[in-house]
Amino acid sequence: MATVAAPSHVDLVLNVDNINPNVKAMEYAVRGPLVIRAGEIEKELAMGVKKPFTEVIKANIGDAQAMGQKPITFIRQVISLVAYPDLLSSKEFPEDVKSRARAILESSRGSAGCYSDSAGLELVRNHVAKYIERRDGFPADPSNIILCAGASEGIRSTLKMLSTISGPRTGIMIPIPQYPLYSASIVEYNMEQAGYYLDEDNDWGLDVAELERAVKEARKRCNVRGIVVINPGNPTGQVLTRDNIVEVIKFAHREKLFIFADEVYQDNVYADNREFHSFKKVTKELGDPYDKLELASFLSCSKGYMGECGLRGGYAEIVNMDPEVKALYLKSISAKLCPTVLGQAVMDCVVNPPQPGEPSYELFSKEKAAVLKSLSERASMIAKAFNSIPGIKCNTVQGAMYAFPEVKIPEKAVAKAKSLGQAPDVFFAFQLLEQTGMCCVPGSGFGQRPGTYHFRTTILPQPEKLQIMLDKFRSFQESFLKEYQ
Amino acid sequence: MATVAAPSHVDLVLNVDNINPNVKAMEYAVRGPLVIRAGEIEKELAMGVKKPFTEVIKANIGDAQAMGQKPITFIRQVISLVAYPDLLSSKEFPEDVKSRARAILESSRGSAGCYSDSAGLELVRNHVAKYIERRDGFPADPSNIILCAGASEGIRSTLKMLSTISGPRTGIMIPIPQYPLYSASIVEYNMEQAGYYLDEDNDWGLDVAELERAVKEARKRCNVRGIVVINPGNPTGQVLTRDNIVEVIKFAHREKLFIFADEVYQDNVYADNREFHSFKKVTKELGDPYDKLELASFLSCSKGYMGECGLRGGYAEIVNMDPEVKALYLKSISAKLCPTVLGQAVMDCVVNPPQPGEPSYELFSKEKAAVLKSLSERASMIAKAFNSIPGIKCNTVQGAMYAFPEVKIPEKAVAKAKSLGQAPDVFFAFQLLEQTGMCCVPGSGFGQRPGTYHFRTTILPQPEKLQIMLDKFRSFQESFLKEYQ
Repeated sequence: MATVAAPSHVDLVLNVDNINPNVKAMEYAVRGPLVIRAGEIEKELAMGVKKPFTEVIKANIGDAQAMGQKPITFIRQVISLVAYPDLLSSKEFPEDVKSRARAILESSRGSAGCYSDSAGLELVRNHVAKYIERRDGFPADPSNIILCAGASEGIRSTLKMLSTISGPRTGIMIPIPQYPLYSASIVEYNMEQAGYYLDEDNDWGLDVAELERAVKEARKRCNVRGIVVINPGNPTGQVLTRDNIVEVIKFAHREKLFIFADEVYQDNVYADNREFHSFKKVTKELGDPYDKLELASFLSCSKGYMGECGLRGGYAEIVNMDPEVKALYLKSISAKLCPTVLGQAVMDCVVNPPQPGEPSYELFSKEKAAVLKSLSERASMIAKAFNSIPGIKCNTVQGAMYAFPEVKIPEKAVAKAKSLGQAPDVFFAFQLLEQTGMCCVPGSGFGQRPGTYHFRTTILPQPEKLQIMLDKFRSFQESFLKEYQ
Repeated sequence: MATVAAPSHVDLVLNVDNINPNVKAMEYAVRGPLVIRAGEIEKELAMGVKKPFTEVIKANIGDAQAMGQKPITFIRQVISLVAYPDLLSSKEFPEDVKSRARAILESSRGSAGCYSDSAGLELVRNHVAKYIERRDGFPADPSNIILCAGASEGIRSTLKMLSTISGPRTGIMIPIPQYPLYSASIVEYNMEQAGYYLDEDNDWGLDVAELERAVKEARKRCNVRGIVVINPGNPTGQVLTRDNIVEVIKFAHREKLFIFADEVYQDNVYADNREFHSFKKVTKELGDPYDKLELASFLSCSKGYMGECGLRGGYAEIVNMDPEVKALYLKSISAKLCPTVLGQAVMDCVVNPPQPGEPSYELFSKEKAAVLKSLSERASMIAKAFNSIPGIKCNTVQGAMYAFPEVKIPEKAVAKAKSLGQAPDVFFAFQLLEQTGMCCVPGSGFGQRPGTYHFRTTILPQPEKLQIMLDKFRSFQESFLKEYQ
């Protein structure tokens, strides 16, 4: 490939000193330098470079299918018919698949190639509202449902509404540790992060005293207007109790905060003593004045039992938003035209799955249950294994797709990291990657209490590979401690 | 559906006075109030309300399949196999479709359900680079190709890089009339629009004297750093001559501007005396120093002959960007995770279509040629018809998918519009909609010289419907003139 010499820095319109400073400042650790290095190592392996391992295990990102999970047949059948309606006459597809595909096509004016409304197809928005009603036992209004290309897009569109240009910057409370979409988008939108620590000693629960400390502290420097709660937790894997949710709602009411309920892992609950409660449901149960709180709740087809990350489907439910503000919200997403119609079709399958008596029901239920059972087993297995390794402490993985263990990094290793200009947890994660091929994200990408060190790993490698990964991790940690203790 | 009374304005975290002022200020006319009203009329018709017409003709948006265009078989076959790989064993699909699908699946780690790199699948980026090389006769580097969910996303990600927070705002030169994605995004990103008028009397060409006037004028109030050129033009339908492109490139070099080459209609050229020249190709032909200019060029699967709007595929080619800036660009898109893998697969079909000798070649070529021939016929038909209607003047539609005729609005109608608080062209478009069901976008949504009035219509209704639409338009205009002249 011929390449042209890069023009000299000073001649350029765009250089690192004059680009958008918020773009420059944002960080997204899940795809950061460690992951870039993992990609390089994969290429080195492919070229035959010798390593102490034969493959990179990408435990950095919640990408179930990349780790070997099979797609749900029903979803893929519907998508293939929507994409190529000639198949509607094939005898190879069950009738319920065909009727779902026909309904989506009809709502989409006959073709997935037509733009939908910016908020999505009416049919899918109706199905989402019914899904929420079944889940919560409270009504949901289809006009409050905004379909989006993955939950991230919905979260970003909603966060953006709170941004300001002049005057004090908007503060958004986010958990520490948090999912770095939030820290990145907050910086991009010129807002301020107001972190509140999750309580690691109490299963990563939310402590109201800590919320109060955090908001008081943040209000000295910005105008705190929103709170993000991730439940089940990413990267922390906790599932909040209903009592804990009630406390957060009352806090949000007292402090006049817009609630961002990141509930994308609502199907991923493994702990016997926990169940998923949506923030919206609890506000409705609490009644006045809490049922008037403004909140947005998000779901994605990338997580749950389906793991359809690449197909990009999701929704935001916007509750109690001022009608004029909602009109402006809809306007703000219109320039993006519409989320992918096939991604919307995936969401339709998720919120309107096969019912008992329909031909796809049995296979669908079997596939869904198998995925969730296996994830539950891996969640137990991983926490147990980590807790048996010296220097590692891991909370129960009650839900979601991650463990976020604490690692005690010996002083000699901290000193070594400093000599390399790396944070200690980054040094640890790089060592782990280079020696074992395991790609985990250092805790500093999510945030952690000063002086503590963590890493996030997904629970997504298939059971056999997960066992290999945990064995490798144990050997690594033993020799790491031997070297630096 | 039970609804809860909206909370009173003052109690809310988010109200129209405290939301993001840039979100509040942005406008996107292609989906504005007129289009909302068109949707209401459709619902009224469905409920049996009597109107002087039986259907709404949505000529407001470049959505070919919504206007009856059939998808390209090859594309849809590939997508259905990628979505549901069990079909790879079916005898119903040609071998070249299967081999394309297999290659995409392999590049996507076996499933379209895996996240791709944020910049897209390596395979597709390679194919895009080869496509550009074939088109231009100059090398393209796959690492400069960023896949995106429709060109809009790529344009927005690139524009965003030039935004600033403090100090003088960034100015971006855009054509007037322009495609409102630009005006909307410029406002959203806190930048300033620096409009340059296209020369309606010269087939909507670019006049360098006007560019110079515009940049000089804009530099009094902002830091002009970029220029957008839409070629073939939207809403104006012109195809720039190579000489005109050379002039713009030299202007951009003199004024140190980043070139945004919106080339999404590159396959839509109808005029015998015009052909498409990419800005990148012309900079390379000009050689030093012009071949060092920073530019971004965009393509989409929503336009051309495929019209796959709902599938959301596109790419940006980023040329001569400072390597450090490019690294920050890639970081900035990483929090969005990735564009839809199926949309990427559509782009793969577009840039790597069936070749002579392959089983799908004949049907693909036939379908593609038929669409482009019909569009070309409709482009002629629409301009001819408009020019035969009193009070309407329409340039030749040399390319793209739109006509942007000038309409002389009589003074009495201007007065009537003012009495209703409407711009005259908005009044005209609303009257047209209410009386004929034709939904066109008023010229003010794109920009026009003060005192002139236009509207944009697509050329996308199928020939029969287009004839009906033009006949309806003629009667409307005759009675409109009778009423107000």
